[in-house]
Amino acid sequence: MFKMSPEEQLHELKKGTVDFISEVELLSKLKDSYKNKKPLRIKAGFDPSRPDLHLGHTVLINKLRQFQILGHQVIFLIGDFTAMIGDPSGRNQTRPALTTEECVENAKTYARQVFKILDKERTEVAYNSSWFKNFSAVEFIKLSSHYTVARMLERDDFSKRYKDQTPISIHELLYPLVQGYDSVALKSDVELGGTDQRFNLLVGREIQKSYGLPQQCIITSPILEGLDGVQKMSKSLNNYIAVEDTPKDMFGKTMRLSDELMIRYYELLTDMTTSDLAALQVDISAGKKHPRDIKVALAKTFVTRFYSSHDAEKAEDEFNRIFVNKGIPDNVPEIKCGAETGVGVVQFLVKIGLATSNAEARRAIEGMAVELKGQKVSDWKMTIDLKIGDEFLVRSGKKKFIKVKV
Amino acid sequence: MFKMSPEEQLHELKKGTVDFISEVELLSKLKDSYKNKKPLRIKAGFDPSRPDLHLGHTVLINKLRQFQILGHQVIFLIGDFTAMIGDPSGRNQTRPALTTEECVENAKTYARQVFKILDKERTEVAYNSSWFKNFSAVEFIKLSSHYTVARMLERDDFSKRYKDQTPISIHELLYPLVQGYDSVALKSDVELGGTDQRFNLLVGREIQKSYGLPQQCIITSPILEGLDGVQKMSKSLNNYIAVEDTPKDMFGKTMRLSDELMIRYYELLTDMTTSDLAALQVDISAGKKHPRDIKVALAKTFVTRFYSSHDAEKAEDEFNRIFVNKGIPDNVPEIKCGAETGVGVVQFLVKIGLATSNAEARRAIEGMAVELKGQKVSDWKMTIDLKIGDEFLVRSGKKKFIKVKV
Repeated sequence: MFKMSPEEQLHELKKGTVDFISEVELLSKLKDSYKNKKPLRIKAGFDPSRPDLHLGHTVLINKLRQFQILGHQVIFLIGDFTAMIGDPSGRNQTRPALTTEECVENAKTYARQVFKILDKERTEVAYNSSWFKNFSAVEFIKLSSHYTVARMLERDDFSKRYKDQTPISIHELLYPLVQGYDSVALKSDVELGGTDQRFNLLVGREIQKSYGLPQQCIITSPILEGLDGVQKMSKSLNNYIAVEDTPKDMFGKTMRLSDELMIRYYELLTDMTTSDLAALQVDISAGKKHPRDIKVALAKTFVTRFYSSHDAEKAEDEFNRIFVNKGIPDNVPEIKCGAETGVGVVQFLVKIGLATSNAEARRAIEGMAVELKGQKVSDWKMTIDLKIGDEFLVRSGKKKFIKVKV
Repeated sequence: MFKMSPEEQLHELKKGTVDFISEVELLSKLKDSYKNKKPLRIKAGFDPSRPDLHLGHTVLINKLRQFQILGHQVIFLIGDFTAMIGDPSGRNQTRPALTTEECVENAKTYARQVFKILDKERTEVAYNSSWFKNFSAVEFIKLSSHYTVARMLERDDFSKRYKDQTPISIHELLYPLVQGYDSVALKSDVELGGTDQRFNLLVGREIQKSYGLPQQCIITSPILEGLDGVQKMSKSLNNYIAVEDTPKDMFGKTMRLSDELMIRYYELLTDMTTSDLAALQVDISAGKKHPRDIKVALAKTFVTRFYSSHDAEKAEDEFNRIFVNKGIPDNVPEIKCGAETGVGVVQFLVKIGLATSNAEARRAIEGMAVELKGQKVSDWKMTIDLKIGDEFLVRSGKKKFIKVKV
């Protein structure tokens, strides 16, 4: 049933994780599972109020996929109970209460994206409303008796807010208990979450113990850096690859990664084993493999995963047609501009960073060094219109390129 | 409908209270009530896990009675919901979970004692399980969103425990919210409690506001001093008059009060108006009334309240027969002894404090100054047997008396 020994599984599972509580416990669970041919139950919870996924979110899903490949039972838990309550105190504007319909709709959106990574047939989908809708006030009070106020206030954000005298509503202390009870209801052996979930996952361990169950192991996955390699991947920072990006964008954005970040993405976002990844790094260092080829392979892996291998081939061809065949480098930086009409080309070159001053821009144009949408610019008095949806290259001299998106 | 004006009512209600939040609000409520001929709803909650009442408990019940006499609606709330949960964390040994049967049984015991003071016909009896048994987890979370952790930890005992790092289970934060929600369910205009309940009563005000209701006023009553006039009345300190004490004990114990404490008891435990009480004190100071007569009246008030006026007369007669007619003072101190056989009378006199040494005791006996159970003791080698239920006087000389109870 399991292709790998418990020790081998443990080795693979440690790839790209932050907390691993604890190795000894997990090995023991893996051994029992191996011996009894009984898959472990792997829980990961998702908040249905934010259903748009980017690769940052998939680090965790990829770890689930790894468990699945190793032969374990993955449980995709939709936290609809708390999502339907939202923040009743009204303090947290980013947490609006969802209706049942919205939860179901968002859960579908989630599923559509997630099952591009996970094997749908082998994934158990659960909604925590199914056990909490019949939970009585008495059961709730009993649940809350299993944890102390002091320990709850040790959670980073709570302790900070408590010190800063920023109000914490009592119901906020209850949410980690709800999440913890989910582990009781699901009898999970392992729970996965982002590093920001570490505290809540540990609460789950305690609550399981209070209810007389074996305690789950917990694994946290790191926060993925965005395309800039510095800040965390996020929509608002515009440094993301969305799960539903077009194949062309997905391919292009991946090609813009630094070589270093490429390795990180391999580690956190692909099935490549630890030893294969180590071998790859050796080959690159020794010059046996060229980083650009490895990056193309990564870009194709992503497009294949979220679309198809055919789409991956097409994306590569298109990329080569636009960039490689015209001597344009792969990693042209991209800039987003607002729609505008009658923009002076000199001012535009300064704005997008291809010139440091109007005078420099004008000199470049007069020297016939500027190309816009594939056309040489000869008149520095020329104006351009930027319309929504426009996407084009601007070149200055031989090596300075900017891709503009409106 | 109301015999007194709102201002007069307010004046009477302030008698013997500690917190009164707030006078302005209560006056406004009393005025509305008077104008609309609509009684105010007066709530007081009782913990059915401790059903044995002494006069200390009745201070509050007496305040309820006052409201009732003034024409308002008293609600006697049995907190059976929380009593049935107890302390699920198991930390608080003094708060065991009660079964439904025990709650019902204790509520009956309560009622039997309480309706010696309150008019049963005009009292609404409520059980908070009746609204909490159908309370869902969602409603509970919403309830808990209306209060912050920081404000809850301001409660004296919580803040002390938090500072001392004594664990506070999260469910303990929920109990004041439960009590607060009771005020929502009951739409109470006023809530009464002991001074130790001040915080919880204030939570009730907040919770009512969160649920869009007018806020209840709160009145706290003081802790009654026991017969010693120093420590609070309590069973464990043996300085109490129990509601279910015999008429004889009730009368006798009252007669042992100091004159000062007698006034306090009048203030907190009788219906005497503020002005009558003031007039009484003037009369005593002027020597127009003798404190002993006032004390007899108080003792008879208690016996009449908890038994009947006939029992009060009988208790007075018996008291006079034993004490007054034999030149024994009213306030003979009482001492409790364990059962024992063959106790030397000399040692016994020392033990109960009628002699400071064996030699002194022997001298007193030889001087024929000692009387036991109405008999002179002539032989210092005599032994006595103390049997459970025994109750007798010991005298040494003309003025030293001790009442012994086994």
